[in-house]
Amino acid sequence: MHRLMQSFLDQNNLDGFLYVGESYGDADMYYLSRFLAGDRFAILAAKKTTLLVSSMELGRARKESAADRVLSTSDFHISEKLKSGRRPDEAYARVLADFLRRCSVNRLGVAYRFPAGIYRSLEQDFSIEILDSPAAGMREIKGPEEIQAIAAAQRACERAMKRAIRLVASSEARGEMLCRGGEPLTSEKVRRAIELSLLEDGCEAVDTIVAGGGQAADPHARGEGPLPAHAPIVIDIFPRSKSSRYFADMSRTVLKGEASSEVLELYQAVEAAQKAGLAAVREGAMGSEVHRRVSDVFQELGYRERDGSGFTHSTGHGVGLAVHERPSLGEAGEALKSGQVVTVEPGLYYPDLGGVRLEDLVVVKKDGCENLTRLQRKLLV
Amino acid sequence: MHRLMQSFLDQNNLDGFLYVGESYGDADMYYLSRFLAGDRFAILAAKKTTLLVSSMELGRARKESAADRVLSTSDFHISEKLKSGRRPDEAYARVLADFLRRCSVNRLGVAYRFPAGIYRSLEQDFSIEILDSPAAGMREIKGPEEIQAIAAAQRACERAMKRAIRLVASSEARGEMLCRGGEPLTSEKVRRAIELSLLEDGCEAVDTIVAGGGQAADPHARGEGPLPAHAPIVIDIFPRSKSSRYFADMSRTVLKGEASSEVLELYQAVEAAQKAGLAAVREGAMGSEVHRRVSDVFQELGYRERDGSGFTHSTGHGVGLAVHERPSLGEAGEALKSGQVVTVEPGLYYPDLGGVRLEDLVVVKKDGCENLTRLQRKLLV
Repeated sequence: MHRLMQSFLDQNNLDGFLYVGESYGDADMYYLSRFLAGDRFAILAAKKTTLLVSSMELGRARKESAADRVLSTSDFHISEKLKSGRRPDEAYARVLADFLRRCSVNRLGVAYRFPAGIYRSLEQDFSIEILDSPAAGMREIKGPEEIQAIAAAQRACERAMKRAIRLVASSEARGEMLCRGGEPLTSEKVRRAIELSLLEDGCEAVDTIVAGGGQAADPHARGEGPLPAHAPIVIDIFPRSKSSRYFADMSRTVLKGEASSEVLELYQAVEAAQKAGLAAVREGAMGSEVHRRVSDVFQELGYRERDGSGFTHSTGHGVGLAVHERPSLGEAGEALKSGQVVTVEPGLYYPDLGGVRLEDLVVVKKDGCENLTRLQRKLLV
Repeated sequence: MHRLMQSFLDQNNLDGFLYVGESYGDADMYYLSRFLAGDRFAILAAKKTTLLVSSMELGRARKESAADRVLSTSDFHISEKLKSGRRPDEAYARVLADFLRRCSVNRLGVAYRFPAGIYRSLEQDFSIEILDSPAAGMREIKGPEEIQAIAAAQRACERAMKRAIRLVASSEARGEMLCRGGEPLTSEKVRRAIELSLLEDGCEAVDTIVAGGGQAADPHARGEGPLPAHAPIVIDIFPRSKSSRYFADMSRTVLKGEASSEVLELYQAVEAAQKAGLAAVREGAMGSEVHRRVSDVFQELGYRERDGSGFTHSTGHGVGLAVHERPSLGEAGEALKSGQVVTVEPGLYYPDLGGVRLEDLVVVKKDGCENLTRLQRKLLV
């Protein structure tokens, strides 16, 4: 078992920590098991790491997972428990209880998001503590293989970004709209090109932002319809490698046509803020401090947050098996540690001007950070 | 509010039902909100349906969601609660408590998988019942628009299936291996062709099975490496429409080369079992009864389940915003209802022969079922 999990269990005087869920969306489940399954299974992190899967998944789990051993719900008579008229969730909870007894667990830890129904059912027979997920803490610090996987996803991300930017660059302004081959260039077309590029690289794009003009003033708007000329277009790509399951994340802002002086200044402000943020990232620096440095640049340049405009989000977040994970580079951000992988992504958003965001992905190091992002920043294309 | 939710709340004497989660993976969250978000948000189903999102998501949620109203965690001072040194999960639970008070909720229902940490925190101030998710029940019966969305995904699924089968059909047997253009035809190549076809149709393939020979003897094995000649190849595609979020699901089994008499008989048995299963689906029929009919065919033909071989899984499952949802066509399957969309997918699996599975997707009707699957079944290609 992982050293950090062992010391977590020791510190909290627990026999084991139980996770229940699927592992496509739940990063802790995948991290601890390295077993990809869309249906619910359980992981007990104790002296050994034990998976509990359905009999249908037993063969694959034994072959693919990193667990010390794999047991099946059939070993604990799931069919009989279901036939006895219990609700399926209750029958499953009874199987888990038998499984925990078999594993000699009495004092059990579960994470904050553990299913409440199972918690209530197991509480009758076990002493349970609800704690921050130790796996989430373990996931924060990336090992060399994990950083390699993230860097590989980032290469795929940049190939897709280049393809998107080429589409914008090779379009032409017709009035207020971008056109290409006589047709309007739309968010959808650019997104499709991004998705195709990612697919060729074995990645999936969970959700890609290609938003121009007023749409980009909402940092989470995906963007739709014809893209504007003479206005910034935010492209934010966060693909996941289908094989490694690790994410990358980056944003660029580009403009085709004539940029107003306000937009040019906006872009320069975000560039300066990002530079300040990147310079502040290092082991021991507080995430909140990095965020304050970035905010200060905007303040000094006269860009204040007001009525939901300006710099409305935090400076960055961890990236790994989840696209948003610890640590935070925001107001509550704690001390950064070597091996964390974080985004640095200041942005400014105004309904009249639109949005500008620049996002790089970096590894926290002892004396600074290593930028995994190689693509240059350039507004005018 | 939906009539079924209202009567559920009335029956259980609840002021509201609370959901917390993200809506890419959590079908209940998307069903109730029609708001797609990767970060945690909350839905309160009470007299009105109210979303609670981060301030960053407020604009998009107000525009895109189907909720009656949208509130922001900033309205309940999330930043101050975080700054006061609470753990983020605890701060969020306190925001939820204030949100529930604002919505005049005292007696609260939550689903079995509601986060245990939030449950424990809210339990101090509210009367909470853990119940089967009413949204899961609502989702079972599909309206005309939902069936249309599933049928559209099924069309995309079949185009991808045809492309995959064409690849196998246009290959040639070289010894025990299939080759195409002088290269081995691999599971990976066929899967890539499937994914590309789905992408062109605006769908994503969550996980696609292309498994031949011994690999296909494990019904959940994805398949890898060169595909075999003279042996059945199981292709199982379950894409999700990126726009509607609805899934489709189908499987076909094909063989290139010479089929042994054992394999031909295996295929015919699965065909006969599927026919029996499809004939048994209608409103009021028990899911368990459909499953028994299918099992009976295998029994009669001498294919017994033993040591994890034979017909090792249930006959089918509901498909909608989740790829596996209620109802079950298995041992515990309850009475079917009009408007449910279910798979009928018998299969046989033996280590020496490989696997055969045939899967159609049908709508339960008053006097039978409507098959959404148009592609014919054919082993030899």
